[in-house]
This record gives sequence, structure tokens and C-alpha cells, in this order.
Amino acid sequence: MNRIKTAIVGASGYTGMELLRTLLTHPAVELTAVTSRAEAGKRLDEVFPRFSKARSAALTFCEPDPDLIASTGAEVAFLALPHGVAAEIARALLERGLKIIDLSADFRLRSPQVYEEFYGHPHPATDLLEEAVYGLPEIREEQIKNAKLIASPGCYPTSIILPLLPLLRNDLIDHSTIVANSMSGVSGAGRKADLTLLFCECNESARAYGVPKHRHLSEIEQELSIAAAENVTISFIPHLIPVNSGIVTSTTARLKPGVSAEQIEQALESAYADAAFVRLLGRGKAADTKMVTRTNFIDIGFEIDSRTNRVILMSAEDNLCKGAGGQAIQSFNIMHGFDQRTGLENW
Amino acid sequence: MNRIKTAIVGASGYTGMELLRTLLTHPAVELTAVTSRAEAGKRLDEVFPRFSKARSAALTFCEPDPDLIASTGAEVAFLALPHGVAAEIARALLERGLKIIDLSADFRLRSPQVYEEFYGHPHPATDLLEEAVYGLPEIREEQIKNAKLIASPGCYPTSIILPLLPLLRNDLIDHSTIVANSMSGVSGAGRKADLTLLFCECNESARAYGVPKHRHLSEIEQELSIAAAENVTISFIPHLIPVNSGIVTSTTARLKPGVSAEQIEQALESAYADAAFVRLLGRGKAADTKMVTRTNFIDIGFEIDSRTNRVILMSAEDNLCKGAGGQAIQSFNIMHGFDQRTGLENW
Amino acid sequence: MNRIKTAIVGASGYTGMELLRTLLTHPAVELTAVTSRAEAGKRLDEVFPRFSKARSAALTFCEPDPDLIASTGAEVAFLALPHGVAAEIARALLERGLKIIDLSADFRLRSPQVYEEFYGHPHPATDLLEEAVYGLPEIREEQIKNAKLIASPGCYPTSIILPLLPLLRNDLIDHSTIVANSMSGVSGAGRKADLTLLFCECNESARAYGVPKHRHLSEIEQELSIAAAENVTISFIPHLIPVNSGIVTSTTARLKPGVSAEQIEQALESAYADAAFVRLLGRGKAADTKMVTRTNFIDIGFEIDSRTNRVILMSAEDNLCKGAGGQAIQSFNIMHGFDQRTGLENW
Amino acid sequence: MNRIKTAIVGASGYTGMELLRTLLTHPAVELTAVTSRAEAGKRLDEVFPRFSKARSAALTFCEPDPDLIASTGAEVAFLALPHGVAAEIARALLERGLKIIDLSADFRLRSPQVYEEFYGHPHPATDLLEEAVYGLPEIREEQIKNAKLIASPGCYPTSIILPLLPLLRNDLIDHSTIVANSMSGVSGAGRKADLTLLFCECNESARAYGVPKHRHLSEIEQELSIAAAENVTISFIPHLIPVNSGIVTSTTARLKPGVSAEQIEQALESAYADAAFVRLLGRGKAADTKMVTRTNFIDIGFEIDSRTNRVILMSAEDNLCKGAGGQAIQSFNIMHGFDQRTGLENW
Repeated sequence: MNRIKTAIVGASGYTGMELLRTLLTHPAVELTAVTSRAEAGKRLDEVFPRFSKARSAALTFCEPDPDLIASTGAEVAFLALPHGVAAEIARALLERGLKIIDLSADFRLRSPQVYEEFYGHPHPATDLLEEAVYGLPEIREEQIKNAKLIASPGCYPTSIILPLLPLLRNDLIDHSTIVANSMSGVSGAGRKADLTLLFCECNESARAYGVPKHRHLSEIEQELSIAAAENVTISFIPHLIPVNSGIVTSTTARLKPGVSAEQIEQALESAYADAAFVRLLGRGKAADTKMVTRTNFIDIGFEIDSRTNRVILMSAEDNLCKGAGGQAIQSFNIMHGFDQRTGLENW
Repeated sequence: MNRIKTAIVGASGYTGMELLRTLLTHPAVELTAVTSRAEAGKRLDEVFPRFSKARSAALTFCEPDPDLIASTGAEVAFLALPHGVAAEIARALLERGLKIIDLSADFRLRSPQVYEEFYGHPHPATDLLEEAVYGLPEIREEQIKNAKLIASPGCYPTSIILPLLPLLRNDLIDHSTIVANSMSGVSGAGRKADLTLLFCECNESARAYGVPKHRHLSEIEQELSIAAAENVTISFIPHLIPVNSGIVTSTTARLKPGVSAEQIEQALESAYADAAFVRLLGRGKAADTKMVTRTNFIDIGFEIDSRTNRVILMSAEDNLCKGAGGQAIQSFNIMHGFDQRTGLENW
Repeated sequence: MNRIKTAIVGASGYTGMELLRTLLTHPAVELTAVTSRAEAGKRLDEVFPRFSKARSAALTFCEPDPDLIASTGAEVAFLALPHGVAAEIARALLERGLKIIDLSADFRLRSPQVYEEFYGHPHPATDLLEEAVYGLPEIREEQIKNAKLIASPGCYPTSIILPLLPLLRNDLIDHSTIVANSMSGVSGAGRKADLTLLFCECNESARAYGVPKHRHLSEIEQELSIAAAENVTISFIPHLIPVNSGIVTSTTARLKPGVSAEQIEQALESAYADAAFVRLLGRGKAADTKMVTRTNFIDIGFEIDSRTNRVILMSAEDNLCKGAGGQAIQSFNIMHGFDQRTGLENW
Repeated sequence: MNRIKTAIVGASGYTGMELLRTLLTHPAVELTAVTSRAEAGKRLDEVFPRFSKARSAALTFCEPDPDLIASTGAEVAFLALPHGVAAEIARALLERGLKIIDLSADFRLRSPQVYEEFYGHPHPATDLLEEAVYGLPEIREEQIKNAKLIASPGCYPTSIILPLLPLLRNDLIDHSTIVANSMSGVSGAGRKADLTLLFCECNESARAYGVPKHRHLSEIEQELSIAAAENVTISFIPHLIPVNSGIVTSTTARLKPGVSAEQIEQALESAYADAAFVRLLGRGKAADTKMVTRTNFIDIGFEIDSRTNRVILMSAEDNLCKGAGGQAIQSFNIMHGFDQRTGLENW
């Protein structure tokens, strides 16, 4: 297999680690650069002893300098950077001919106004929004194939959008009644020295946060609105729970009059029959994070609450894998004409 | 302080342990009997080494025989038994003059029909339903004072009912839009040798279960309907998360037209200004299980989602304490004219 | 009961929280001051929502200013400060007539040379060492009664010294063969924003650290040497494990020729027959942290390895309670003539 | 690559799951049979939803019938069965021409007497002991190549033997002073409905168990004795800690007079320079389970305690992978002439 020269920009956080975990053994990837301001000059296996003896363990972290990255021959760069920072380096690398798979929020929203509303500052690169593709492979495979700039979706959005899309497209639910409750592992909060993320603060703790207007709502509603062909506004309540990784989401919505469980099931099945990484559990089955951690799968089950005429969608994914690094690599595979599963078949 | 002679019937599960934890040091309690079919004949501190050197550590577990229990002079019995089993022994002990605080579901529902619908068998003692009091001290203090048979509320119901009641009573929300998502610690599933409750099955796992018709829905809707003065039907999605104890619940509902955040806040404050064990966090504050574990408090915060005109109620309690044993002892204190906090002030 | 006016200096870490947890309900304590540079000006229940509605929840954190502390009428001060810092404020408060219970390492060692060897800088107050009492209540009750300056022992030392002392005093083991392995909860590392203490770094992780010369070795060997009446040098290997609190220690040593299991058992029993907070589990029983967390107990079991003629001592305690705050309060009780258990009877 | 037809006998426990995890994607393996008395008749992905969409997810569990297994064309069988049970089926499958990699203890000991002493019943197949190879690939590569019956080592033994072997072979330590303390994840106790293994019993708990004569001591001492060329007897104290998987072991021993840190380092390095799955961390570095979970690596660091003239060996491995399934597959690779790392390169 032809190896694609690849860079990871911002490789010292949890998303960076997840990209490394897969790319270090991906049969079609040759890592040529890993960057980190904080760790520049250190070897990969010094920063991450877990990766000792891996193929590229002897790589040295470098500064996120576009010229330096381009000089390694990298054809593709994954960006695992804070929003705002990503846009700037994305532009510089695009100009140097690299393809970009950005895991930040910078290119996920089509509307600069919505970006500013949710992120609190003007969009840093509005001219690039046009060519960016919201890289949810289950619904944008064709666009991803030809994209130069992929905005890889957020973790919560993936877990909420994928179960809802077929129901909205088939007009099975009243979208004004959608309420999504998610529970996320602590890695979702990032790898930073913050008192509230200490072991003793998170262990034996569960709490909601970020209500009523978590930033991820913006991309969730964008994609749901496209599917419904009208404006969709939902309630979203994220929670932090004491697991390292994994997101489980329970989404409820009122069924349109006369809609049956069979119609829900068929909508899901026809949408995802060929999806490599969607596993439909069927009616009455709840998804469990422990079935998906360290895999690129999203599991989706559902139930009908006939007493209230609501559907309950229950999905689970690994926030770092299908919710971040794995999904980005899935797009990478599509961009390069590989089987989507290349390098991602771990159990 | 006059010590009340007290029995715990079914003291070898997690709820029994929680009752023991508090009653062993309660200044107004003298434990005279602890029963357990499985552990009969063993000393308390042999079964629960944690309680070694406690005041009643030398008590011996006995069979749950009503005559035996009555012969110890017990005036009150806490029942921590499976539903169905509790009703039978409750009757026998009532006949022998004991007051009963039942932590099972047997006397929580006023309607035998609803009981049969949710529990799958006819109610075992319909004649006793009349005199049973649903022992939520924050709303039934007067009835609890004079009760001989208390049906202590379930863990999920407590976390859902208390935040909602003031809103329903003041007609601030559209009750047909209520959706409650709860996350519970594993102790809520009981102390039984079940593969799905093993450490390795629960650790690093999160999942919904028991949808769409968890048994606790029946008492939740009963109490919400009383408060709303009409039939209330809600959606309830419980989840299991890897903590020993603690429940966090996020409940959403559509506000009635024109209702403001201030009205929500005032409704909560006027309802619970004098409640010893309700702590109102105010607007924008999420409750965290780690602030309430091993206490009898329920913490309640809220937020307004103005985009969807929903209120988000965020509550946390210890499922074993305010959700079970602690609440039962709170009723015990009220029944005997003690300060509600007696024996329950732990931090 | 007469309430003693009491200050906690350095009340915003995990040890401070543990002192608060008990002192907020201690029947003979009136908290007059809680200090914290970082939290000065904030209310106690703002910093620690867990303590809302507690007796002294409305106290405001102040700067650790000796005059300010003395002006509140405090008669006793608990110091939960970093070593080096504690000595300075201890002196100032002693001069103002307060009794001091110091939970840092500053006054634990009799020898300034050993202090400098293990802590890397000269001892900050050598003149006070004379009057300081190493406050292990099980062996220094008389000295504690009359002390003005208590050096409360460290968490690891308590778990290692108490099981070994009776064996050394009775000359039952060869002290040159002592090897102690401890496993500690993460709270032992303190409440500080440090990447290595994040939930995702500690959860699902176990590792040794601090070998071969952890600072606590100095006080361990000091006390073992006193008991053995000759210099004792041991190997000590601490480990970090993913629990909030609790230390379990396994200590092995070669038996002196002819020593029997009965002699071990008798030595332990005669040493601790009257000890309020030592629970002897007997031969063949291993101590478990979950039996002691949030209590002031240390549980001690043992086994004889006849194949190698070694004794295996297995102890468990809560590192924050018997290993820190609880033990300090035990000394406080002794100093003031209260029953040792006052305020410490939680299960 | 030629696919070897392979069976897993006893595939429904944690070791079975670990074998499945790797063998489902092993490029040289075709699974032809998976057996489980309890799950016979169910599909693999029904029993283990985690493996849905895997290559062999549609396999159906069958009874552990030797003829049935042989009839699938299986050339090799991994046995993940209780001791005693494994020996019987091993014989039946050997007679049918299969090679056996047994993960139980049945063929690990050369001496039937030692087996009986430690396992409490006569050895079930003494005639097969002769041809069994204790399959520690780092020291038995040549014998494994030609073996028909591999006794794959236990989890604790691997973590203790590998660090000690080079030191014993080079006569650097006094073997009579060896003390090994191990901490294991709960999966090591197996997947069985046992009250003591419940989440709430293990979480926030740490305890020693199985002292003084854990069954694994027998194989540990057998292998250490071979290396030392004399009888070695050690003390071994296993502990259970709340992680899913992972073992960390701290082993201490007195250095022979004049032995230096450099000699320790050189002994380790020359022993494991070419070992694919041993990672030497060097002096002063402690191994951490989180660096090795779900990999086949064992990490080994060490420190010299010059105050007591002891070496402290600190090793970490995944008890299910290098300590069980991974190591067995490593032997499988050697038996079939594959690179040892085939199918085992996960990070």
C-alpha cells in the first residue's frame, strides 16, 4: 500500500494521542511530523511512553511551523488544536499544498454569524468556509472524497446527529420536541492542568454542565436543519461522568402522528445498511459505552415510549475515536480511496 | 434523649447498610433486631466489618420472624426488602403494634391497578393502602407525624419529584413536555451476585436501561399528578454510571407562556425555604453527586433554555441516603417529634 | 460540652476539607477562623458546596495572618500547610498563646539533620523541636495531653508504624528485613492542578513512585528505631492507585527464630486492647480500605508465611482521616480531656 | 499469509474475550470454533456485542466437544478453561492432532507433587507434563517453536519472573530475600457472578488476598529456581485494586555484595535487547499499568535502595494480554514461524 506522508499538528492532547494510537499502525500512513509547542524537542516515546517500540516512536516533536511541516513532505495534516488557532495554521498549510483534516470547530459551521454567536469572537477565516466539508462520513462520503479541507465533527454532535438524521429526513418526528442528554468521559474536557479535572474531583461525581447553550449545539442544529429542510432548535444537556472515554446519548422526540416503531427501524436501517461504523442494535436495546471504546463504531438502539408517543434514541461512541480521531481517519481513508476501515479495525 | 427500640428487617443489602450506618449512631435509636435470611446467626460486624466497634456491632442477625422481632421490644421497623415480600411482614408487624417505615415499593401507590400494571402481579395488601403515607417529608410532614405505615419514596422519584413539584403547583410548566434523564450509581441495582453488576462490567461503562416504563414511573406520575391536579405522564430515562452511589437528574419541560426565570426561582424558594435537606443552588448552577453523597441533602439547580423556552432542572442526591435510608430516617424523626436532622448531620 | 475556639490554617486542600468535615459537627468545637490565601474573602460553602447548611458554613476564608487568627479568640489551630510554611506560622501562633496541631512534616523529626537530609533544606525552627510531640495517640497519649505543639504523623507512617511497633518492642522480627509496600488513594498527592493527577491520568492506572527514599521514611524509621531501641532502616515502596482515599499497606519481615503466630497475635492484642481506633482483624485476615474510609480506624490483619518464616502485616486506613485530619482531631480530643472518639464516630 | 484454522475453547470469560479481541483481526488466523457450555447456540456478537461487525462475528458458540472442534478443521486450540478441566480436553484434542496452547495452570508445573500441593488434587494428566513447554517466549523461544503443548504462564508469574530472571542468572541478588508485591485489576479474578466482585465491592477498595501461598507461587518458584540453579522460595503478596485490567509488581531483593546499578541494568539489557515485548525503562523509572493495558508489552524499571542495599524492580503488564491472551498468541506466532508481533501491534 502506498504510504501517505502525514503530519499531526497538536499531538500532545488526548485527541492527538488518539490520532497517534491509530496512525502509528495505519498501513497507508507514514508519519513525518508531530508538533507540540509544549513538547517540542522531545521524542514521541518520551512524551508518550505508551507508544514506545511503535513504528514512529523515534519521531521528535517540533514546533507547529508550517514551513517545517511542509518540508517533511507531508501531504496531509491532522489538526488537533484549540479553535481559533486551527484556522490560521490550516490556511498556511493549505497554501503549501497540504490537505487538512481539522478536528477543531473552526470550519464546522457554514455561517460566520453562528460561529461568532457560539464561540464569542469573529470567525478567523471566513473565506475558507466555502470549501470546508463537514466530515461526517456517513452522510458526506462524496464531498469528503474531493475535499481539501475537512472539518471533522465534534464528539457530542456525532452521537446526536447520526441517530436523528434518518428520522428527520423521513419526517417521522416533531423536531421542536427534541431533547438530547449526553454523558461524556473526562477526556472530552481535554488534557489540561485544571483543578476541576483532577481524579478526586471527577471520580465518584456526575454533573451536568454547559447548559443551556453548549458550543456543540451550533453544529448539531446546522446538520439537523439541513436534514429536516427547516430550522431545527433543540435542547442539549451534556454531563460529565467518571469514565476515561465514551459518550452515551439519550435523545427523545415526539413521533409524528401515526408513526410506528417499524418506520423508525426501517429509517435507521436504510440509512446505515452500508455504513461501516454504524451498528444498529434494534428496538429495545440500549447502547453501552463499553462496547465501543477504542473502536470507531457508533452503536444505536431505540425504544418507543407509547405512553407519551416519544421515540428514545440511545447511542454510544468513543468520544476520542468515532467522536474525534477515528472519524478523522475515516475521512482520511475516504479522501485517499482506501476502504473506510483501513487501520481502524480494533476491538 | 429517649431511645426508640428499632428493628431493621432485611439489613444485608445496600439499603440495609445505609440504614445501619446512620442508626448505629443515631442518638435516639436503640437497635434491637437486624434480620437477614442469608446472614441469620452471624454477628453484625462479621457481615459488615466496616461497623466493627460500633455501638450495636455485637447484634446478631436473625430470621425475619415477626414474633421474634416483636419480642425484642421493637416499636418501629424499617423494612428494606424486595417488593411483595415487604407487604406481608408489614402486616404482621403492624398487627403486633409496631410502626412501619417501608423502603420497598409495596405501599407507595394509591391505586392497586397501577401497582399491578407496573409490578406485574396483584397488590399483596390492598386494605393497607388507605393508611399508608407516601413519606416524602418535604410535602407530607403532617401526615408522617401520625402515620403508622410509611411508604418511603424511591431514589429516582425523590430526585425528580422534588424539583418539579413547585413548578407544577404554580402552573409554570407544560407537564406534557416533561422528560427526565437520570444517572444512578451501581448500588441502586442492589447487592446481588449478578454478572452485569461486576466491577469489570460496570467500570468504564455508561448505559441507559429500563426504558420506556421503569417501575418508578408509577409513583413519580402519581405524585406529579397530585401536584398538578390532573393526570401527568412523563418520559423517564434512567442510566447506570460507574459510581458507587449518587443520582444526578436532568429534567426538562416547556415553560408556560410568559413564565420567567424569577418565577421558577421563587417557586422553588418558597417551597423549600424551611426544608432541612433541600439545598437550592440557584439559576445556572448544576448539582453534582459528589456534593451530596453520604448526606441526606438533595441539591437543586436550574437553568432557562430561552432558545427553546424550556426549564432545565438539575438535581443530585445520594440514592442510598436521601433516596432511601436517610429519607426513611427523616420520616422516623418526624414521627417521633425529633428534629428532622437528628442523626443525619454528616458531611 | 464546653466549645473550644478553633482555627484551621490552610483549609482549602484535601486535608483541610477532612478537618472541616469533622470539626463542622464536633460537639466541642467552635470554628472561629479558616484560612486560605487562594480563597480569602470567599464563604466556606462557596468554596466547598458540600458543606452548605453546616453549622459554620457562613464563615469566610481569611488570610493566614497570625494576629487575625488570634483575634478570633482561637485557642487551638490545626495547620494543614506545606512543610516549611507550617513552622513559621506555628511559631507565631504559639507566641500568641495558641496550641498547635501541625499536620505538616515540620515538627515530626527530632533530628534537624535528618530533616535536612530528607526535605532538602535546613530545618526552619530547630528550637521548637524539643517541645514538639509526635502525635501518634496509640503510643504518646500522655505526652499529647500536655503538649502545646503536636506534630501529627503522616499517612504512610501511621499505616506502617502501628502494625510494626508491637513486634519490634517484643523483639519478634529481624528489623533489617522489613519491606513495606503501600498503595494510596490520589487525594494523598494533594489538591493541586497537576497534569499527572488528572482523572484520565490516574484512572485505570497503578504505579510505584518516590522510591527509594520517600520523605515519610524519615519519620517511619525514627519511630521504629525508638521502639526497637536501635537504628532501624527499612525499604518502603509507595504506589498510587485509582481510589479517592485510603491506604493499604503490606509489610513483611523475617521472624526471629522460634517466634510463633500466637506471639504475633498476643503482641498486637496487648498493645491495642484499649485503643479506640485500632481494629485487629486477627490471623489470615486482610485489611480493606473500603472498611475504613471516612473513619478514623486503622484495621490490622496478619499472616505467617511459614515457607519463608516471614510475617505479613496488612493494614488499612483512610489517608485523610486516620492518616491526617482524624488523627489530628484524636490528639485534639486527648489534649482537652475529651473521649478520644468525640466527633469521630462515623461509619 | 496462510491462515491457521484455530479454536478457542472456553471463550466466554475475560481471557476468552482477550483472545477473541486479537484473534478476530489476526492476519494469519481463521477462527473455526469458539466454545462455551453456558453460551452454546448463541452467536459470538450476541454474547459479546463489542465484537459485532468483526470478521468472525457470526460464529456460533458450541459445546466443548473434541470431535466437534476437530471437525471444523482446527489445527490449534487455545484453552481458556478452569484448571483441571483443561487437562482433559487438552488430551482429547492432542489425540486428534491439534496443537494446544493452554492458558490454565494444568501444564505449567513440571512436578505433579507441587501441583497437588498448590491445587489441592492430584494432577489430572501427569504423562503429558513431559512434553508441555512453559511458554514464556522471552526464555523458551526454541522449545515453543517445536511444541505441541504450550502451558502459557500466569499473569502474576510473568510480571515477577521476567524482571528477576536476568538478576538470578547473573547471581546479582540473594534469592532468599525476594519479596514480590503485586496489584491486579479485577478482571484477574474472572468473569463470574460473585458478590465480592461487584462494582460496589471493588470500587474504592484495595486489599491484599491469597497470602501466604497463592497458587501462582508454584510456577514462579519453579522458573526462578531453574534460573538460579537452586531452590528459590519467595514471599508473594497479591492485591486487588479497582482497575479493569493491569498488574503492577514491585519486587525487592538484597543485592549480592558489591553489585552495582550498572550490573543490574546490563543484566536486564542483555537479556531483553531483542525481546519484542519487553520495554526496559531504565533506572529510576516506575512502570505504570496505563502504559501497557491492551498491549502485549511488559515494562520494567528498577531502582537501587542504597540505604538497605536492595534492588526494587517495578514491572507492569496487562494481566489479560501479556499476562494471558497476548502471551499465548505470541507463542502461537512463534510456533508457526510468524513474527512474534503479528496481530499484537496495538497501542
